[in-house]
Amino acid sequence: MSNADAIADLKDYIRDVPDFPKPGIMFKDITTLLKHPYAFRSSILQLADRYRSSGITKIVGIESRGFIFASALAYEMGVGMVPVRKLGKLPAKCVQETYELEYGTDVVEMHCDAVEKNESVLVLDDVIATGGTMLAACKLVEVLGANVTEIAAVVELEFLEGRKRLENRPFFSLIQYR
Amino acid sequence: MSNADAIADLKDYIRDVPDFPKPGIMFKDITTLLKHPYAFRSSILQLADRYRSSGITKIVGIESRGFIFASALAYEMGVGMVPVRKLGKLPAKCVQETYELEYGTDVVEMHCDAVEKNESVLVLDDVIATGGTMLAACKLVEVLGANVTEIAAVVELEFLEGRKRLENRPFFSLIQYR
Repeated sequence: MSNADAIADLKDYIRDVPDFPKPGIMFKDITTLLKHPYAFRSSILQLADRYRSSGITKIVGIESRGFIFASALAYEMGVGMVPVRKLGKLPAKCVQETYELEYGTDVVEMHCDAVEKNESVLVLDDVIATGGTMLAACKLVEVLGANVTEIAAVVELEFLEGRKRLENRPFFSLIQYR
Repeated sequence: MSNADAIADLKDYIRDVPDFPKPGIMFKDITTLLKHPYAFRSSILQLADRYRSSGITKIVGIESRGFIFASALAYEMGVGMVPVRKLGKLPAKCVQETYELEYGTDVVEMHCDAVEKNESVLVLDDVIATGGTMLAACKLVEVLGANVTEIAAVVELEFLEGRKRLENRPFFSLIQYR
């Protein structure tokens, strides 16, 4: 669909929602991009162009908005899609990783048979904030012996410096906010 | 990718997990389908073939596994994707619908500007069990004046008779278990 080419700036399709999820936070809402077929398509095609010759054979999407981009990108690239989920949501045998939140900790899981040893994996989420969940997702991939070829986010909140937390793993974002 | 044509039976890619989420329940795990690129692609292409000439312009995906299929299908069809989420997850103004669980109730939300009046909408989830969440998602679409052209599930648990609960709205499933 060539109309995806007509999307000049994906930022035009991201909505600012003030005071969500709490006062003082300006939330970057990607649902306005998703509901626009050409803008959504453009975001996926830009990622696909970047990764098509990368040798990546699985795309890990992080629950739950990460699923949306990981699924369409895996579909476009003809590779597998793997969900990383909160504790207790996946039915079969899992590896787990604990990560820190502002207050306390949380746990993410991935099925043990989700990736193969030495497989090339892209870890994808809609937004990178502090990077804690993304780092945990990378560790799940790596503990199973697969390689994180790159980590990607549709939206990067640069002022939270999440990129720095990824311990020198390659990182890419489509849209940046300072 | 013509290899998607080689997938004879999607059921071969669904994993049975006994006693999840609780004893006595045989869980139908779609992650084994998702990680197989041709099987996942075949599931999406079968849905796209069904809906390509339907006039559908939005696909509603239900949190969170529904996002996976709704996203790839919306991408393939070149239409918008709309998330229906649990209470408090969507940032902008929402409509809400309460539905019954085995014990108690739950609430799903959709953004008020997610669909247009008279728009043709497909409501999609990975699995239909009792149909309660799907019915609630339909009501969210309808209260905003849009039309539910069809409801679809990748997996239908026929013995739970969820289809009957959808009050005569058109329903389709790719895979059925009796």
